[in-house]
Amino acid sequence: MGVVVNLEGGKRDAASIKPLIDLTAKDMGRVNELILSKAGSDVEMIPEVANHLISSGGKRLRPMLTLAAAQMFGYSGDGHVKLATSVEFMHTATLLHDDVVDESDLRRGRKTARMIWGNQASVLVGDFLLGQAFRMMVEVGSLDALDILSSAASIIAEGEVMQLSAAKNLETTEDEHFAVIKAKTAALFSAAAEVGPVIAGVSRNDRAALRSYGMNLGLAFQLIDDALDYGGNSTDLGKNVGDDFREGKVTLPVILAYRRGSPAERDFWKAAIEDNGTDDAALEKAIGLMTRHGAISDTVGRARHFGEIARDALAPLPATPQKAALIEVIEFCISRAV
Amino acid sequence: MGVVVNLEGGKRDAASIKPLIDLTAKDMGRVNELILSKAGSDVEMIPEVANHLISSGGKRLRPMLTLAAAQMFGYSGDGHVKLATSVEFMHTATLLHDDVVDESDLRRGRKTARMIWGNQASVLVGDFLLGQAFRMMVEVGSLDALDILSSAASIIAEGEVMQLSAAKNLETTEDEHFAVIKAKTAALFSAAAEVGPVIAGVSRNDRAALRSYGMNLGLAFQLIDDALDYGGNSTDLGKNVGDDFREGKVTLPVILAYRRGSPAERDFWKAAIEDNGTDDAALEKAIGLMTRHGAISDTVGRARHFGEIARDALAPLPATPQKAALIEVIEFCISRAV
Repeated sequence: MGVVVNLEGGKRDAASIKPLIDLTAKDMGRVNELILSKAGSDVEMIPEVANHLISSGGKRLRPMLTLAAAQMFGYSGDGHVKLATSVEFMHTATLLHDDVVDESDLRRGRKTARMIWGNQASVLVGDFLLGQAFRMMVEVGSLDALDILSSAASIIAEGEVMQLSAAKNLETTEDEHFAVIKAKTAALFSAAAEVGPVIAGVSRNDRAALRSYGMNLGLAFQLIDDALDYGGNSTDLGKNVGDDFREGKVTLPVILAYRRGSPAERDFWKAAIEDNGTDDAALEKAIGLMTRHGAISDTVGRARHFGEIARDALAPLPATPQKAALIEVIEFCISRAV
Repeated sequence: MGVVVNLEGGKRDAASIKPLIDLTAKDMGRVNELILSKAGSDVEMIPEVANHLISSGGKRLRPMLTLAAAQMFGYSGDGHVKLATSVEFMHTATLLHDDVVDESDLRRGRKTARMIWGNQASVLVGDFLLGQAFRMMVEVGSLDALDILSSAASIIAEGEVMQLSAAKNLETTEDEHFAVIKAKTAALFSAAAEVGPVIAGVSRNDRAALRSYGMNLGLAFQLIDDALDYGGNSTDLGKNVGDDFREGKVTLPVILAYRRGSPAERDFWKAAIEDNGTDDAALEKAIGLMTRHGAISDTVGRARHFGEIARDALAPLPATPQKAALIEVIEFCISRAV
């Protein structure tokens, strides 16, 4: 409560993603080459669809986590590049399938693949990328890394189904909601970070530290994403304020405003979320109610809580540029969506 | 040409799947237990959707191939049960996604999952089953088996996209069509058979034999499936004669009838396949044209060609009950769809 956070997309001097980008720049060059090569196929539609999404300007935070997490333990092979690419492919496959599930028209400010090539292509190219992701993991040959990433694949899908089952349910508790975002978003952050120390062959404690860091960073990341949907800047987001509202998504700002609202306010939320009463006037009212009840600032507060756990997860590790960059990214994610 | 094949679903004394079923019955009991346990989740919708398809009475030919192929080389662990279950999950995931892609209403005579739970659940539960399949493979711990099955996952998706790209294209050549069914159907048969000798740790030649057997059996299987759509018995198929026609699918009987047809006949096919002119009268005419041009019997002839290659692939292997059962299954698949 009362946390003042800049939601307008302005940069804080204190928190930047730049150190992480700089440290991983060389390896990310190899990841980007591998992405292009492994998204290739004689079946023309596959690279077309894949590159549409891949080139659309996501910041590739997840593969950078894998690279930095391997570097910080002195890993010197090239397995981290393949695993980082696998992680990005798993993420891209999820986005392709998500857009079909959510019937989304826009992603990062561009038409979704399903709007251009149809739901069919989005489903199948997603399947292809997932298959390619597993092939690359197999090439690396670490059964531990395979275990972590294949488990994440199941958990992500489970989280998506959980979200589907809970769709438009305003009675969702905050705990239930955390379980959903832990599975659908944070599990991949966690796996992406954990496979770094795993292929570097370091101790269980170091693995656990990175796993916990990734999980809590992922939770914070998703909560900020949800907060920004009710107050961010559409240029930064690649989506417009109110997209989640118009899709009737029950995110944490909605859950808090609903639980804290009067009976009349709850009727408003029911009309909006359950009965699609989500025009511009309703959006304005929704943001007003959230502001009155501190729902957005408290969502950011919850994100900050998870961010602090992520920071402490790394505390016992020796000081390295990678550790500093990963810690700075926490604040970067909280002060604005990546 | 002129091959007379019983398409009415009657059993030939000479070819049965029973020996394969009997040899794998005990192991299949364990596969079925594992299917139920690994399709389980606290997220209720997952086992509901998965069990709808899993319980709908497919013959589970693919996992039986894995089991028999491991048994014939004296494999004594339990890895083959896990790999067989992985294979069945990969198949089930493909069916769930296929029904979304094809907008199918019925599968094996029952409503498709997407008609009951929606496209969303079908996409996501498919993803979940694929994730679970990879987790089981990782448990087995054979990187070679992982390589074979993850490659198959990519190839299957690639084949599905290829099919989508070629959809309603009557100019598709027979070779192009074989490339599609090789990827979308035969690759999984091939992988299912090859992982048996792989976990049994036998020679490259034995692996190659089973791989080739599975690939060619899969091609024959798919071609017969396509032939039956224009002359089978709907009780056996779990689909009605003409389903492919009504969906405008360009299968081999259509390709042959179109290529061999007069200009007027080609106009009929264009109206039917490209412009959805697929009412009952058109179906009757289509079957008449196919019969006149030998398109159905020659599709069966092509299947027999692949069946013979499958049989010869196993020829060098020592005589075992498993080898005999796998050979008999070829004729079983050709004389009626499994």
